[in-house]
Amino acid sequence: MNEKGLLIVFSGPSGVGKDTLLKRLLERYPNIRLSVSATTRSPRSGEENGKDYFFMSRERFQELLSQDKMLEHAEYCGNYYGTPSEPIENWLSEGKDVILEIEVQGGAQVLQKRPECVSIFVLPPSIEVLEKRLRSRGTEDEETIQKRLGAAKEEIAKVYQYGYAVVNDDLDEAADEIAAILRAEKRRSLRNKEQIERMLKNA
Amino acid sequence: MNEKGLLIVFSGPSGVGKDTLLKRLLERYPNIRLSVSATTRSPRSGEENGKDYFFMSRERFQELLSQDKMLEHAEYCGNYYGTPSEPIENWLSEGKDVILEIEVQGGAQVLQKRPECVSIFVLPPSIEVLEKRLRSRGTEDEETIQKRLGAAKEEIAKVYQYGYAVVNDDLDEAADEIAAILRAEKRRSLRNKEQIERMLKNA
Repeated sequence: MNEKGLLIVFSGPSGVGKDTLLKRLLERYPNIRLSVSATTRSPRSGEENGKDYFFMSRERFQELLSQDKMLEHAEYCGNYYGTPSEPIENWLSEGKDVILEIEVQGGAQVLQKRPECVSIFVLPPSIEVLEKRLRSRGTEDEETIQKRLGAAKEEIAKVYQYGYAVVNDDLDEAADEIAAILRAEKRRSLRNKEQIERMLKNA
Repeated sequence: MNEKGLLIVFSGPSGVGKDTLLKRLLERYPNIRLSVSATTRSPRSGEENGKDYFFMSRERFQELLSQDKMLEHAEYCGNYYGTPSEPIENWLSEGKDVILEIEVQGGAQVLQKRPECVSIFVLPPSIEVLEKRLRSRGTEDEETIQKRLGAAKEEIAKVYQYGYAVVNDDLDEAADEIAAILRAEKRRSLRNKEQIERMLKNA
């Protein structure tokens, strides 16, 4: 019935498995696109422009900002990071659903600018499981793990800013739940206003 | 994650196929229950108490009303009709999803009393198709059909009171969409507050 795609804000604590979940989702639902962030930092070895990031100068970034062409942005360690709105709008117009994987501060900016977006927060089955997952990476020292856990708890406390909370216990089940959320959201009466009005007018 | 069932307000114009759709849904999802209305009118031949209606005296009906034990009610042709809340609450506590098939005026009462409920409006593919379906019953004269069509258009104009609008074109697809809506609604972050708080507390 509706033709425009859904804008999806997708967040969750470090270690919860967002990337694996997105990968599974993209394999199964070819209509979904992943938003690419912009940054003013230099590309690292192997990073591709337009795939990993849109790499751009500070001047270009600030220009987009001043034209209100960033859905959200932040500055870390002297570099800008943000979400250019133009590629997203193009995909949405083509009827693609666009997922924005983003931390909660950026998510809050998008939710404010685009209240009609679908917002999904990925939860671990428990904090204990999250801790195990963080440890199993084997790449971080105890202090870093404790820091990440603390940050995770703070992030999870903000879950209610999001419309939906999906537990990533079983990967396939979590992917199915996200697919159900997208299918349901397409049936929101307000998203189908144009078509409903057309039906009533043609009667 | 959550244990309590969903309360679902289910409406749509006469002839849109609500009953067939509910039947299909109940066949596939054994966790769903259909709410039974109460009435003060006399049972007709073949009608079963507790299945077709809860038949009760005016006094009993008014007693339930005064105890705020009716989710909604109306008076037609000198008889009361309404939705007793007690059986619904019991099912919801058991984790069953309860569907309330109801016209839009009653639906509005429930939506006001229970803003957390899930509200679904069933639409025809077009007004033309609805007219065909009404005619194909072959039981009503032209005047009645025109009356029903007029009422249908008025009802459809109220679709935006409902959270979701499902088009009943293909029966299986419509049932799948309703199932997706219920699955998605169970993932609403606010419906899972208790479990999320427990997770954060146990951390």
